[in-house]
Amino acid sequence: MTAVAPIFLYTDFGSADIYVGQVKGVLYGAGPASPVIDLLNDAPQFAVTASAHLLAALALQLPLGAVVLAVVDPGVGGARDAIALEADGRWYVAPDNGLVSVVAARAGQKRSFSIDWMPQPRSASFHGRDLFAPAAARIARGDVDWSAVTTKRELDVRLSADNLMQIIYIDHYGNAMTGIRADSVDQASRVTIAARTLERARVFSDVPTGVAFWYENSIGLIEIAANQASAASLLNISLGQAVRLQPSA
Amino acid sequence: MTAVAPIFLYTDFGSADIYVGQVKGVLYGAGPASPVIDLLNDAPQFAVTASAHLLAALALQLPLGAVVLAVVDPGVGGARDAIALEADGRWYVAPDNGLVSVVAARAGQKRSFSIDWMPQPRSASFHGRDLFAPAAARIARGDVDWSAVTTKRELDVRLSADNLMQIIYIDHYGNAMTGIRADSVDQASRVTIAARTLERARVFSDVPTGVAFWYENSIGLIEIAANQASAASLLNISLGQAVRLQPSA
Amino acid sequence: MTAVAPIFLYTDFGSADIYVGQVKGVLYGAGPASPVIDLLNDAPQFAVTASAHLLAALALQLPLGAVVLAVVDPGVGGARDAIALEADGRWYVAPDNGLVSVVAARAGQKRSFSIDWMPQPRSASFHGRDLFAPAAARIARGDVDWSAVTTKRELDVRLSADNLMQIIYIDHYGNAMTGIRADSVDQASRVTIAARTLERARVFSDVPTGVAFWYENSIGLIEIAANQASAASLLNISLGQAVRLQPSA
Repeated sequence: MTAVAPIFLYTDFGSADIYVGQVKGVLYGAGPASPVIDLLNDAPQFAVTASAHLLAALALQLPLGAVVLAVVDPGVGGARDAIALEADGRWYVAPDNGLVSVVAARAGQKRSFSIDWMPQPRSASFHGRDLFAPAAARIARGDVDWSAVTTKRELDVRLSADNLMQIIYIDHYGNAMTGIRADSVDQASRVTIAARTLERARVFSDVPTGVAFWYENSIGLIEIAANQASAASLLNISLGQAVRLQPSA
Repeated sequence: MTAVAPIFLYTDFGSADIYVGQVKGVLYGAGPASPVIDLLNDAPQFAVTASAHLLAALALQLPLGAVVLAVVDPGVGGARDAIALEADGRWYVAPDNGLVSVVAARAGQKRSFSIDWMPQPRSASFHGRDLFAPAAARIARGDVDWSAVTTKRELDVRLSADNLMQIIYIDHYGNAMTGIRADSVDQASRVTIAARTLERARVFSDVPTGVAFWYENSIGLIEIAANQASAASLLNISLGQAVRLQPSA
Repeated sequence: MTAVAPIFLYTDFGSADIYVGQVKGVLYGAGPASPVIDLLNDAPQFAVTASAHLLAALALQLPLGAVVLAVVDPGVGGARDAIALEADGRWYVAPDNGLVSVVAARAGQKRSFSIDWMPQPRSASFHGRDLFAPAAARIARGDVDWSAVTTKRELDVRLSADNLMQIIYIDHYGNAMTGIRADSVDQASRVTIAARTLERARVFSDVPTGVAFWYENSIGLIEIAANQASAASLLNISLGQAVRLQPSA
């Protein structure tokens, strides 16, 4: 049995739409088949910076050896490059538009390559299916001779490793995640969004139903939440909204 | 080849959200890999009683030997226990908050155990990923010595085996399922919701387009439906709404 | 290792709903397991003609040998037949209500059969789970003796091979696909919808942000789109809306 790495999808293709199935058809056809896992197919649409920060937090949860097929790509068909990045033991196949640049900026060990060793993509508008998926399949089965591929010394679009003081994702419960890593912050800090200032709680059940708070969520980010209610509705939060930190009172 | 049981996910984590993929990453990493099937990841949110009745109906459709990872868990991080229940040949891994208690109440053969044989979960807010998923993986590969685990004689939260006279689920067609098992009811009964009383039909195509009726759905429950239309919109039905039965006219 | 064909799901069962998981449970139980890939589970609801045209375009992207389990079936439980169609090297298992008839009309090589060799479906309302899924599993593992099955010379419901001058699908970005194959049209044509006439662009990034255009999409259809915006919202497009072509100015 050949060891084949699992492939995690991180895209804005839409979990209910026609795109993910086509990508999986290509991955299947490229066998021997990797396990394919939908990490997120509703990444913030067209929002490369928010998606890059969310990916950097989620990626730390993935097994070493994982291949992440990451596509949030409003510029598809234009001049942007396609890259393969290895960072701290995981591979990322992505457009070089900043999407994997937070992962890269925070990585201890990394190397990156242009994907110039694949056939020209069949379509101009769906590189996820026609370029990134077959490239990810080849990487997952160890079928690229990296010594023969020219290293790319720098990504073309580089976001910093710093926290992003914004709402980067709102889940279906109405929890609003920020781009701030909780372990970089004093736990007694308060979080301000619009005119509201929120205290920290350890977990949902520590506050009364319907009350908003912040906590360190399960991927290490500061998240604004409410017990058994939608914080996003309660506080009228939207994607990209600014967040501030205040020292404890 | 080792026989590994399939794992069915039954959660309110959201099919479009970031949580299911993380659970699957853990299940993959715990290999040898079980097949993982999404039974439902949009179970009625925070609604343990409705979710418990829907699960009891769906579970009867699953193959014997299946392991169900069931998480609707508004009290995560609080004091509620975690349990493994074996009922009529299927395993359930769940919070002990009532979610699997309708399954248990209706089971002929059952036994249950506290999940006190797992490491402390890494996060306080995502036991689906950090406690229930690795426990389900161990059960699926037959890697728990039940004789060494203390039996839990009673679940902490116990719902009854009886029908639930409410709307417990509304699907994307607008069909509204009740917690009433059709085989417990005279087929000539009528179903009343708000001010409307509905007759039974065998199947959608037996009634004119746009007309509401009730029928025994494919998981054995009384369902309020309309031919090629949304019963939920037509009759303004919402989750948790009360339903009554009337004898035939 | 037995060669087992992959099964692609093309349904209106809803990607967030309880139906797809039950179908997958049956496919799993029918083993040896085929890989099962969700091509689309949110096909236009109750809309057989639009779904038939979308399927005909998507099917060309699938690997040869694929088995497509295609169910958009408002008449379930009524008199319509169930069919297995082999067309240009792929199998389709479907209600005989027109859903696979565009595929059939455009196929070079085809043969079709009534599915009268399966047990009576258990439920009257969910043939996807109780009839089509087990039939697809048998076809995928090569376990049907076609020489012993009576050929069906003609489908009962036959749509033509021609383009459909309508909006057949709107994706979550707000891109609106027509039933018009781009390679059947002069590239200098303009597309008219309601009072708006649109020029062609090669790709999204060739037009300014927020501007609507048409292009040949990644499954070969004429699609109305807007760069980093929702064309459906901008132009108030709805499913089934008429589209016209105009020669170049």
